This record gives sequence, structure tokens and C-alpha cells, in this order.
Amino acid sequence: MGELINGRELADKMQSELKVEVNELAKSGIKPGLVVILVGDNPASKTYVKNKNIAAGKIGIHSKIEHVAETINEAELLTLIGKYNKDDQFHGILVQLPLPKHIDEEKILLAIDPEKDVDGFHPMNLGRLFINEPTMIPCTPYGIMKMFEAYDVDLEGKNAVVIGRSNIVGKPMSQLLLMENATVTIAHSKTKNLEAVAKEADILVVAIGRGHFVTKEFVKPGAVVIDVGMNHDENGKLIGDVKFDEVSELASYITPVPKGVGPMTITMLMYQTVQAAKKQK
Amino acid sequence: MGELINGRELADKMQSELKVEVNELAKSGIKPGLVVILVGDNPASKTYVKNKNIAAGKIGIHSKIEHVAETINEAELLTLIGKYNKDDQFHGILVQLPLPKHIDEEKILLAIDPEKDVDGFHPMNLGRLFINEPTMIPCTPYGIMKMFEAYDVDLEGKNAVVIGRSNIVGKPMSQLLLMENATVTIAHSKTKNLEAVAKEADILVVAIGRGHFVTKEFVKPGAVVIDVGMNHDENGKLIGDVKFDEVSELASYITPVPKGVGPMTITMLMYQTVQAAKKQK
Repeated sequence: MGELINGRELADKMQSELKVEVNELAKSGIKPGLVVILVGDNPASKTYVKNKNIAAGKIGIHSKIEHVAETINEAELLTLIGKYNKDDQFHGILVQLPLPKHIDEEKILLAIDPEKDVDGFHPMNLGRLFINEPTMIPCTPYGIMKMFEAYDVDLEGKNAVVIGRSNIVGKPMSQLLLMENATVTIAHSKTKNLEAVAKEADILVVAIGRGHFVTKEFVKPGAVVIDVGMNHDENGKLIGDVKFDEVSELASYITPVPKGVGPMTITMLMYQTVQAAKKQK
Repeated sequence: MGELINGRELADKMQSELKVEVNELAKSGIKPGLVVILVGDNPASKTYVKNKNIAAGKIGIHSKIEHVAETINEAELLTLIGKYNKDDQFHGILVQLPLPKHIDEEKILLAIDPEKDVDGFHPMNLGRLFINEPTMIPCTPYGIMKMFEAYDVDLEGKNAVVIGRSNIVGKPMSQLLLMENATVTIAHSKTKNLEAVAKEADILVVAIGRGHFVTKEFVKPGAVVIDVGMNHDENGKLIGDVKFDEVSELASYITPVPKGVGPMTITMLMYQTVQAAKKQK
């Protein structure tokens, strides 16, 4: 039975440390601020935004939810972002995705000042990450790297396989693993013999978005397994991309869902907001 | 014996096509222009710059070599780039690397207008590439993609292994292969069992910078082998990273050195200069 990587516990620890840091910063007159822009009434988006707001509040980050109607047009949304780019109360700006179809997501992300892009989705920040320059980093893969660090998972020279190639998880994850000298394979829905490819992994990160997709046949005994999935089963229960019960028998370390990667994502958002506040001061 | 991928021939064909296009553009008053900024007197850099100038001339691209002394300081070089950013005679700006140690390369690349960055090295363009947005693409991997296309090499679902993780070859190469639905592994100097990893490749791109490093033990029979290396042996002869004589016995397709990847790199630079001119018009 593999050891559990407890994302909830690590997130709580990091958030406590951030709270101390925010208290310290207050003494020098720095109050980190985060504005979350929510367009429309997607229930999942509302939940995510609410959770970010709660986390910020606990840490002492000044946070604001800017909730605008689904009918806002692109120009109005760009104007709103422009306003927050100039507002020095807010060091981080996050636009909750997805946006309504009449708005070009790429254009919106480009409009955010890269220095305030605490989500790490701006092409300039992704480009800087790609060339190993210090930058804002997408929060989910960044949180996973913090897990490896906390659990002393050695990455150098290891075979890492990332299943999934999204711009915000799979690709930046691969780059972060590469920076730690892992040999990195990016696999995806078009990969032939996905089982065999995954089974070569010492480190397996699964972000394919299909509930219980990764079974024990995909996993080499002793592998470290990270489950980024957030799916709902037929009963509405939150499940990961990994069939935890059987894979945990084989893995050396494994993250659960929930209480695995999820809490770390929010934590890294807070972490980068605090970093941004320090840098912008 | 594998079929030769003749980079020289393909480059000549593409350059002829570009010449026709440049002639056509002239009728609408468009004259693509490229300025190459050369700092100091590094002999290799001088050769590269001269070759770029010759290629541009043949195609009918207006090209200029701006040769400045090694002693130029960063501020002066930034001013020079600023001048060409504004000069609408030049649609492409290329700063020949490496730069002298007293100049911050990253800062210089950032100063080039991304629209004129025909080398594809600007972090904004690398970021756009990373998220599959249309952009300028580093010329060496872009040229390799054109080779695959010209020789009908199917990439979908194939195991591609890239040896080398530089910002201008290995990493963008991986991203381009991924965009064509290959399963991509990035291997490098810290990879364990590099031979075994390479031997899994249907498509093997070698950009490790060590002469004759890849022997037949690294290659699966039938693999497509692309050699990005430009090394000199003890007699000063130009050799690739791949031991061509023995690997060509196993490969289904293979690029030689010279007359393989090299001519395609220059060609893609010209191609992107023409594209930039059309776009900036």
C-alpha cells in the first residue's frame, strides 16, 4: 500500500505559513490583493470563485469578487481588466474560466498585465516558463511540484509520464518536470499503447479528465501517482482519473481525490498573489 | 539502407517558391526586409550572417547586415533594436547569437517587436507556440516539420523522442511534434538509459551537440532519424550528432550532415520574413 500524499494537509500548512507572511508584510504597509472576475452564473465557476475567496480571507489577502453578467461584451470586459491592471490595491487578477462563447478567451488572458497574472496563463508567462525564466506558473502543476518537494520525491533522471496535454496542466507540468531533470513523456488521447507508455513511468501524472481511467494495468509497482482528475461518477460523487483503490496497492506514493491536488491549486494561487504583492511593491 | 531526407534539395525548392512569391508581392508594393544585427567578430557568427544575407539576396528579400563593435553596450543595442522596430522597411529583425558577455541576451530578445521576431525566440512567441496559437516558430524545428511534410512522414500516434532540451530546438520541437499528435519524450544529458529510451522512438530527433553520439544501438529498425548536430571532428570536418554510416543502415529515413537540417533553418528564416512582411502590410 502506497503512502498517501495528503494535499489537504500540505495546503493547510502552506496557507498557515502564508498567513504569517501576510501579517509580516502588513508591518511594511503591504496588503496583497486579489480580484477574481466572474462572468455569468455557471454553478461550478461560482463554487470555485467562492472557495478562492474563502482561502484568501483566511490568509488575510484582500480579495474581491467582481461578478458581471453573462451579457457583458468583450470590450467591456477588456475595460474592466484595464481598470484592475492600473489599480495598485490588486496585485493579482484572475478571470474565472470558461468564459461565455461570445468572448475570446485568448484575447482576455492577453489583456491581463503579466505581472498580475497569478494564474500563470498569459502567453508571456508561459513563454518565460518554457525557457526556464522566473515567472508566474500555472497553479496546478506548481502545486504538484510542491508536493514532490514536501514528500522528498526525487525527480532527477526519472521517467516521468504526463497523461494529458492541456495548456494549463499537462504542458507546464512537463516543463516543470524537465527543469528538475526528469526524462519527460507527454501522452494523450492519440497515444498508442497508453497502458504500456504509462507503465514505464517512475512518476505518473494523470490529467486526462476521465473518471477512473487509470487502472492498475497502467502502473509500474513503486511508481509515484498524481491524480489531477475532478470527475463526477453516476451518483454525483467526486472521483479522480485514477482508480485509487487498486492503484494505491501498487504505487509508492499516491494523491487521493478529493484532498489531493485540488487544495494545492488554490494554495499556489494565494502564494503567487503574495509573491506578486512583494514584487510590485 | 534508409532513404535520405535531402535538406539541401528541399531548401532549394522552397527558396525558389519564395522567390516567386516575393516577385508577386513586389507588384503590390511589398518588399520583405530583414535586418541581421551582428555584434563583434566571432568568425562562426560572421559566416552564419553572411549565409543568411546570401540566401535573402537570392530570394529577393531586402537584407541588411548591421555590424556593430563588440564594445557596444546594452543600452546602445536596445536603442538600435528600437530603431528597427519602428522602421517599416524591415519586417524581420534577427540578432545573431551568442552576444558578448556584458550584454543580457534575454533582455535583448525581449526588446524585439514579437511581430518582427523571425527567429521565434521571443518569450511571447514561444508562449504562443506552447498554447498552439499561430506565431513565429524557431526555424530549426520548423524546418524539420517541413521535412516530415515533404517526405510524408506520418507523426500521429507515433513515439517521438527528442534528445536535447534547448529553448530553440529541443523544446519547440517537442511542442510541434505534440501538435501533430505524436507521443513525445524529451530526453537529455541526465536521462538514464538514453540508448533504451531512444530505441523506443519511431521518430528520433537528435540535438545534443556531441559528434557521432548516436550509434546504431540507439536506433530502432525503421525509425526516422533527424540529425540537428553541427560538430567538427579532430580534422575540422563538419559532422552530425548521429553516426550516419551505421545508423543509415537501420533508419527508414535519415538526414545527412551537411545538407540536412542546416539549409532548412535558413530557409524557414526567409519564409517567416516573407510571412511577416505580408502580415505587417
